[in-house]
Amino acid sequence: MSLPYSKRVNELLEAAGLKPGDRVLVEKPGASYEGYLIPREEVERGDPDCVVIKLDSGYNVGVRVDGGATVKKLPGSIRLEKFGHPAPFVQNPELPPVSIISTGGTISSRIDYYTGAVATLFSTEEVLQGVPELAEIVRVRSAERLFNLYSEDLSPKNWCSRSEKVVAKIVEGDSGVLVLHGTDTMHYTAAALSFMIRNLSSPVVLVGAQRSTDRGSRDTDMNLVCASILAGRGDVGEVGICMHGEMDDSYCLFIRGTKARKMHTSRRDAFRPVNDLPIAKVWPDGRVEYVNVSVRRGASKPFPEAVFEEKVAIVKSYPGAPPTLLEALIDSGYRGIVIEGTGLGHVPTEPEDKKMSWLPAVRRGVEMGVVFAVSSQCLYGRTSSQVYRNAILLSKAGAVYLEDMLPEVGYVKLGWLLGHDYDVETVKRLLVTNIAGEIGSRVRADTYLI
Amino acid sequence: MSLPYSKRVNELLEAAGLKPGDRVLVEKPGASYEGYLIPREEVERGDPDCVVIKLDSGYNVGVRVDGGATVKKLPGSIRLEKFGHPAPFVQNPELPPVSIISTGGTISSRIDYYTGAVATLFSTEEVLQGVPELAEIVRVRSAERLFNLYSEDLSPKNWCSRSEKVVAKIVEGDSGVLVLHGTDTMHYTAAALSFMIRNLSSPVVLVGAQRSTDRGSRDTDMNLVCASILAGRGDVGEVGICMHGEMDDSYCLFIRGTKARKMHTSRRDAFRPVNDLPIAKVWPDGRVEYVNVSVRRGASKPFPEAVFEEKVAIVKSYPGAPPTLLEALIDSGYRGIVIEGTGLGHVPTEPEDKKMSWLPAVRRGVEMGVVFAVSSQCLYGRTSSQVYRNAILLSKAGAVYLEDMLPEVGYVKLGWLLGHDYDVETVKRLLVTNIAGEIGSRVRADTYLI
Repeated sequence: MSLPYSKRVNELLEAAGLKPGDRVLVEKPGASYEGYLIPREEVERGDPDCVVIKLDSGYNVGVRVDGGATVKKLPGSIRLEKFGHPAPFVQNPELPPVSIISTGGTISSRIDYYTGAVATLFSTEEVLQGVPELAEIVRVRSAERLFNLYSEDLSPKNWCSRSEKVVAKIVEGDSGVLVLHGTDTMHYTAAALSFMIRNLSSPVVLVGAQRSTDRGSRDTDMNLVCASILAGRGDVGEVGICMHGEMDDSYCLFIRGTKARKMHTSRRDAFRPVNDLPIAKVWPDGRVEYVNVSVRRGASKPFPEAVFEEKVAIVKSYPGAPPTLLEALIDSGYRGIVIEGTGLGHVPTEPEDKKMSWLPAVRRGVEMGVVFAVSSQCLYGRTSSQVYRNAILLSKAGAVYLEDMLPEVGYVKLGWLLGHDYDVETVKRLLVTNIAGEIGSRVRADTYLI
Repeated sequence: MSLPYSKRVNELLEAAGLKPGDRVLVEKPGASYEGYLIPREEVERGDPDCVVIKLDSGYNVGVRVDGGATVKKLPGSIRLEKFGHPAPFVQNPELPPVSIISTGGTISSRIDYYTGAVATLFSTEEVLQGVPELAEIVRVRSAERLFNLYSEDLSPKNWCSRSEKVVAKIVEGDSGVLVLHGTDTMHYTAAALSFMIRNLSSPVVLVGAQRSTDRGSRDTDMNLVCASILAGRGDVGEVGICMHGEMDDSYCLFIRGTKARKMHTSRRDAFRPVNDLPIAKVWPDGRVEYVNVSVRRGASKPFPEAVFEEKVAIVKSYPGAPPTLLEALIDSGYRGIVIEGTGLGHVPTEPEDKKMSWLPAVRRGVEMGVVFAVSSQCLYGRTSSQVYRNAILLSKAGAVYLEDMLPEVGYVKLGWLLGHDYDVETVKRLLVTNIAGEIGSRVRADTYLI
């Protein structure tokens, strides 16, 4: 393993008897850094006079070893496999076969010491090498990078290619498929795969990380372990998200793809089920507790319905929201609009300033064949077109109420339905027909803010 | 009290010895209804052959007393005051003076038995008469209906008039002000009043109802009682929302106006603090537990800054969201755009299809003086422009990151700031300066999903 530093720094490290993984103390006037020396990978750029030290906090820091700096070897060292460095990954042919499809995101990332930001750098192999426990849970039949994008840059086109790839892997004989994914829009993708993969009875497990792999608080390992347990032998035949259930490294939740949402910008337990219980709790020691009804594992042959109408949008209703955004979408040829209404699914219908009412735009759109689907920005609870006059009017104008569906899921479902050759009435009927667990028969009281 | 039914039904009720409030059994072929007879108010419309019965479930039902129906008096009767019928409301001059400003919503509503929907019908006096306990908590110095709109039909103009009215009441000597409000957009209004009323040190308490007053599960009473306790003698000088803390009638939460959000379409405990603890827990027996730091009650003289720039919008980022909506807003002269980004505050910046990147639109808008403010659709947690390349690029393009502010609060704050004569740089600086508790110094772990 090379230490590709400048000649001066290499000599300094050598003189101190330091090799990668050793504990080191770097002292500079006014500052000192103690931790483990880890290899600097970015040989082609960055400062060759900088050494990278893993501090006891788990964070890595780049320290410039300039004139006034001294370098000292301390007792102790760490395994470097954890940090993406080659370690043997021996497969056990007895274990259930799974495929891993990597699409980018933090789980495939680490800090880029050049810009200081998190960058997508790891290969799928490197991710696996970082979590050697996987070799004891599953046999990784194939691991490939489909693309390498942060999830906020993904588009519905990527959903289509991924659902086809997942179907191919299951048809080839995998027990389940792991999809490594950025977390920002993981719940959109999970919903998309839930609709686009038909006749599924194998686990398709989306998994990501909220912390980059070189941080002490990394969640990659436990998420990957739990996701592999599910993909390998989970008795479930649905698409779902497997991420931390709570802040601690205790267990993961497997959440139905049509009922999951990222509810926190940074916590490891950011993904929560909304209006639903998790399908299962999964412990890294292999225990799985099924806490909700779900499609069971079976031998059905899935097939893709990888279609999406791109002329679909989400529009939020709020005080002062003019109907002009709706008008602009209608005039631009949009075929579907998901409204994030307030409360039970309301929009301005009879405001003091009549020009601010959304009803005329909705009526005009409906006449032109645009499908309006109403969800609630409350997120939790069920919409209703029957309680208040406002919603009764919107419903009479032709808008469809999305029951207890999340706005994001309504968007994915509407785009998917409009991607088919259905007529408008069929789309409206299917919108309120449960297809992939997106509509619950009732909202349980014990699913609020869990 | 009249029973304005048809002659035939009146005679039938009279023959059975029934008066309003009495327990009644109506039997029809195939159906029977047992409950309390309540007066039918809608004399000018509806079916005069229908009697209204309050079932033991708490729901009211209109039963047509046609040819085959029999009517029988049963033992027992109920007080009718609970259902909006005149009862003495005697004021105690020793109690703290408060004003009540009614603006419509479910708390001022009951079922319209003609359409079957909830309609806004009650006057403020009727609301008070329905909750006679208030007379033992506060002295209602004035009660007026400012307007009568469902909150989904409110506009920023209404926020301005209300903040001026609230200030006037406090200056006139009230201990606090109760604002009766529809729940759909109550959190938008609470944020608006938080910014628009400056130098406040008295409680301004927004209160509403999730259930109409003629339902057994009505939450009006406890919400109004707890809100009055706070307005009358609460040791707090902020704008906040007072609603049920849990499903049961145990206690209410008083939540800071800039940190509250309606998180459920129908539950009585729909309003939750996001990234903040509630300011206080309030029990209907008068106990108040202060659980968060807040501005204390004082004698400062508030003044209104009731301004709002209407050319401000909220736009959500999601996979497939084109930059065209941003472009349309920029071209329509919008001066401020709040982006509901994904994760830490991301938008498509480097997608495979370069036309889908939002960066060129943001750069063009910034050049034209448009202020872009980035929040997170996760709702919980803090945004960051420093972790990922995507956000670093958006931030470098000139977008401002709204820390731990809710998107709705960001919208209200940006509209309010742009309503002033500030230059763009001042608006950007004030956006990330805490003014009314909207920005916390850190997000506490114990404020997630509470």
